[in-house]
Formats: sequence, C-alpha cells, structure tokens
Amino acid sequence: MIDNEFEKSIDSDRSMSDVQSTIDFASSMGEVTKQMNKTLLHTDEMVLDIMRHLTLGTGKNLRALMLLISAMDAAGNVPQSAITGAAALEILHMATLVHDDVIDDAETRRGLASVQSKFGKKEAVITGDYLFCRCFAMVAEISSHYPDKFKDFTMAMTKICLGELQEIKHQTDTDLSIRSYLKIIAGKTAALFSLAMYTGAILGGDPEKTARKMAKIGFHIGMSFQIADDCADYEADTEKAKKTVKRDLTEGVITLPLIYAFHKNPALKEQVQSQNLNAAEMNEIIHEVIHMGGVSMAENMADRYFKKAEKDILSVQDLNKREKLMEILNKLSKNDKGQKSK
Amino acid sequence: MIDNEFEKSIDSDRSMSDVQSTIDFASSMGEVTKQMNKTLLHTDEMVLDIMRHLTLGTGKNLRALMLLISAMDAAGNVPQSAITGAAALEILHMATLVHDDVIDDAETRRGLASVQSKFGKKEAVITGDYLFCRCFAMVAEISSHYPDKFKDFTMAMTKICLGELQEIKHQTDTDLSIRSYLKIIAGKTAALFSLAMYTGAILGGDPEKTARKMAKIGFHIGMSFQIADDCADYEADTEKAKKTVKRDLTEGVITLPLIYAFHKNPALKEQVQSQNLNAAEMNEIIHEVIHMGGVSMAENMADRYFKKAEKDILSVQDLNKREKLMEILNKLSKNDKGQKSK
Repeated sequence: MIDNEFEKSIDSDRSMSDVQSTIDFASSMGEVTKQMNKTLLHTDEMVLDIMRHLTLGTGKNLRALMLLISAMDAAGNVPQSAITGAAALEILHMATLVHDDVIDDAETRRGLASVQSKFGKKEAVITGDYLFCRCFAMVAEISSHYPDKFKDFTMAMTKICLGELQEIKHQTDTDLSIRSYLKIIAGKTAALFSLAMYTGAILGGDPEKTARKMAKIGFHIGMSFQIADDCADYEADTEKAKKTVKRDLTEGVITLPLIYAFHKNPALKEQVQSQNLNAAEMNEIIHEVIHMGGVSMAENMADRYFKKAEKDILSVQDLNKREKLMEILNKLSKNDKGQKSK
Repeated sequence: MIDNEFEKSIDSDRSMSDVQSTIDFASSMGEVTKQMNKTLLHTDEMVLDIMRHLTLGTGKNLRALMLLISAMDAAGNVPQSAITGAAALEILHMATLVHDDVIDDAETRRGLASVQSKFGKKEAVITGDYLFCRCFAMVAEISSHYPDKFKDFTMAMTKICLGELQEIKHQTDTDLSIRSYLKIIAGKTAALFSLAMYTGAILGGDPEKTARKMAKIGFHIGMSFQIADDCADYEADTEKAKKTVKRDLTEGVITLPLIYAFHKNPALKEQVQSQNLNAAEMNEIIHEVIHMGGVSMAENMADRYFKKAEKDILSVQDLNKREKLMEILNKLSKNDKGQKSK
C-alpha cells in the first residue's frame, strides 16, 4: 500500500521566498530565468525529461521583461515578488505554447522539437496542464500578500483563453472583419502584455490608478507589436518569412494585411482558399497583398497603437522606466522585422 | 480600434458571494449545480455553445459531495464558501475530462458527444484550459479568506497532473508493478478525493489536524473506489462492462486484476498485447483474469483500503457526518458494480 501523495504535497514547498527583498533591474532577468529553471526542474523524475527539454528552448521573455520594467522602483530595483511573478507569467506563456503546438500539429518550437512531436500528443496536453498548475502555484505564493488582486489575474487568464478560442473559431474565415481581427489579437498577445504590466505595477507597490495606466501601455504595445509582426512576414524578403506566410495561409490564419487586401480585391479570397499553393502562387499572393496596400494600411494601424502607447509612456514620471518602456516599444514595433518573437 | 479587454476584466465580476452564510446540507448539492451552471453559462457568447453542451451532461458530482460532507457543521449546514469550492472542484474535474477525451480520442462523455467530437480537437484543448482558469478564478474568490491554504490547493492540482502523466507513460506497460499501479491511482482519483475532503474541512472551519484526517479518509475512499471500479468491469456479466474492459485493453490501460493475473500467468501478457482482439479472445482474457484470481486479489486490496477508510470514519465524532461518510464509502466501494462513475 502506498502513501497519500496529497498529504505530502501539503508539507512540501512550504518555504516562501522573501518577497520583500529587492534586486537591481540589470540582474533581474537572470533571476527570472533561474527561478523558472528551478521551478521546472525541481519536479518528479517522471516529467524531468520534458521539463529539461523545455528549459533548453530560448524564448525572448518579453512578458517577463515588461513585468520587471513595470515593477521597477525609482532606484532601479525590483522586488522579489516580481521575479516570481515574471517567472510565473513566462511559464503560463510556455503552457499556452505547448498547447498551441498540439492544436497546430507543430513540429518545432523555439528552435527545438515541440513537446508534442518529441514526447507525444497526450504528453503535451498534460504537460500544458501541469505548467498551468505550476504557474498558479507561483501566483498563489505571491497572492497571499495581494489577496484582493488575485482574482483579477485569473479573470485575465480566462479572457486570454477566450481570445484563443475566438482565434480558432475564425480560422479560414476570409470574411473576418478588421474589428474581429483586432478583438482576437487584443484577447491574446495584448491581454497578456497588459496583464504583465499591470501585475508588475501592483507588485512594485504602485496604486491601482498607475497600475491601470501601465496595463493600458502594455495593451497598446501588444497591439502594435502583433500587427507589426504580421506585416513583417510580408515585407521580409527571406525564405524564412515566406515560410511563415505560407504556414499562416495553409492553416487559415487571417492577418490584417490580408484582410485589407481582401477589401481591395475580393478575388484574392478564392486564391487564398485554394489548397496546396505552390511557390509561384504563394509569391503571387504575397505580391498582391503588398500591391493592394494591405501591408502599408496594416502598418498604419500598428502605428496608431504605437502612438497611443508612446503618448502614455512619455507621461511616465520616472525617467529610467520611461526610457526602458520606449526601448521595448521601439524594439517590438519597428526593428524586429522578419523575426517572429515568441 | 478597440478597447482593452483586460481592463474590462478588472472591473467585471467584483461582486463576492457572502462566504459567511450557510445552507442546509440537503439543499447544498442543488446550490453547487446552480453555481456551476451560472459560472459556465455566464460567459462570452463565443463559448456559450460549448458551455451549454457541458451543462447538459450529468456527472455524479462525487467530488463535490465529499467536499460538502467534509464541510458540514454539527447542525447539518455547509458554508457558502464550500458551495463555491465544490463547484470549482467539479469544474476542475470537468476540465480534466475534456482533456482526457482529447487524449483518448473519445467519442462520448456522460452520455453526450465529447467536446472534441462535437466541436473539434482544437476547441477541446482550449475549452479545457478555459475551465481550468474558471476553476482557479473561483478558488481565488474563496482563497482571499484562506491565503495560506491556497498554495496547498495548487500544489495538489500539480500532483494530479503528474499522476495523469504517469498513467500515460505506463500505458501498454504489461510489466507495470503493483506499486506503480497504486501510485498512478493515488495520484489521480485518490488525490482528487483527498483534496475534496481536505478543502471541505478547511472551509468548514476545522483545524488543520482534522482537515488532514479528512484528507486521509478521502484518499482511502478514492483508492478503494478506483480498484473496486476496475474489478467491477471484470465481474459484471454485461456487454457494457465487457466493452469497458475491451476499451481498456485496446488503449493499453493496465488495471490491478490484470497485473495480478500476469503474475500468475505471464503468457497472458502476449495475449493482451496482440492487436485487434476479437470477441472470443476478449472473453478468453476476461475468463483467464478471473480464473487466475486477479479479480479476487484486487478486491482484497480494495478491501484493505476500504477498512482503512472505515476505521478513520468510525472515529469521526459527529454522527451525521460519520453516517454520510459511511454511506458514500459503501456506495462507491461495493454497490456500484459494473457502472463507471465519472
């Protein structure tokens, strides 16, 4: 007969990090990575292979970075709770990517084999669930200090799932409206960026009003970034970028440049819907989308969100924080062409 | 341009139920169902179809029942927080079932089409994630009153995911040891039953020591129930039960009666491993498992867990609670033959 695993779990992991201590911003991302690895690798032997594999992939940790900037105080330090929060957010993001790969049957992720292709589909579904739970456990650790904020976090995550469902529902929908498209990316990327900035501000001790302003900045950065990212695929003159557009078209992912081009040239819809596009047809579609002004119109939209984010960032009092936010806004919206950032 | 969904989510759903009020036990399960339906159906239009479908299925609400019994006070009332906790636990269970059906490619669930067969695999993966989030949001609502307990809950959920991973890992493993089998069911069914009883006790205001005793009772009921459930499939002389055994064998699910039978007759392993068993071969395997004493040995093991649960239940002071616990123990371990209880 064997022991009650649940009872063991009550006893384990009682130790709380000292949430009150602070770390200078320059070292903070390193600490986030350490905490992520510690959390993922401090686990049952059974899942260790999968967790090791996940720690090998290198994401850009954008969400963690935003949370850390938002949590930074005037002296350039971030509290320990923000390190935990940032690690939790990246693990949440990782969970959604593992499930995304199940959904899309993706072979690779972050330059490595995806969990589903390396370990199996069943394992990937449960691994995602496991990562969700680990994320919530970390959030729970912080939340005892912010009991009234915790529900906001879970509600935001719920919205993010709804955003994903909406995206799936509209796949292959060549009649997708601009508004619906914006709602989809608002619910996914922008909601997660917004959550990162809001959480950072709360953990950094900001009042609710400031935290909401940071949430708004995160939201607009997310919108600008996602649209710019979709445009970049059309503009970059590399085989890699073309591959992304091709994958999107094959999977029925409708992006903003395409929606604008459909408005100008409805005949394009049929072209996109035809199966097994060859290289020449692909190039033709890409050329037509650019020619119809789809990319430049989408870039205009991205720019509108960029300006909204910029305006709010410029009113941030702390110079150091302002500069770091402008830096990330510029990096994500302009200089990242042709590189998918996940 | 569109609004920040995250900010809206901060404002929504601020209202807290009155967690201090109580409800008499007889009405409490009805309240749990009401709260589940309210939570599931109060949602975005986009997922309403799926949520409506989920509310049509009738589960046995075993986990909710255990939580409610455990939370019941001497006057036979349960606190409002236990209603929320029980609803959250059933939604968590629902989330794992939706993902289980993706993993097993299951056509039906609770007498209805599974989410994956009716709405699609992609939708089912995200629906499971969404239900996880809703569960956590409900837990967060309660946890502001029990900040130091919340991490226990998330750690227990993490263990449950690990149990599922372990189960997948050992599928088709005809060399699975008795110990490994017990560890698998301990991590799944028994861990969730244990969590239900522990949470109920905490929400009912019991001290930690009593809550742990209830957790132990839940664990032993879970072990006894799961093993008895596996035995029932072999014993029930109905086509339905044979179908369950056949499905288990086809999917490589190794149960305790089978493990015992393998010990007595290792040649049986090869028989089980052969693909596409016909009805005659199936009957032969079932007969052999019974003949080798696999079922009666497994029943002995179930009985040992039954006795452990019984011993602890008999030392529960409150007569009403004691009777309700004995009732559920007897129902789950003995009188439910041939009926899968999910």
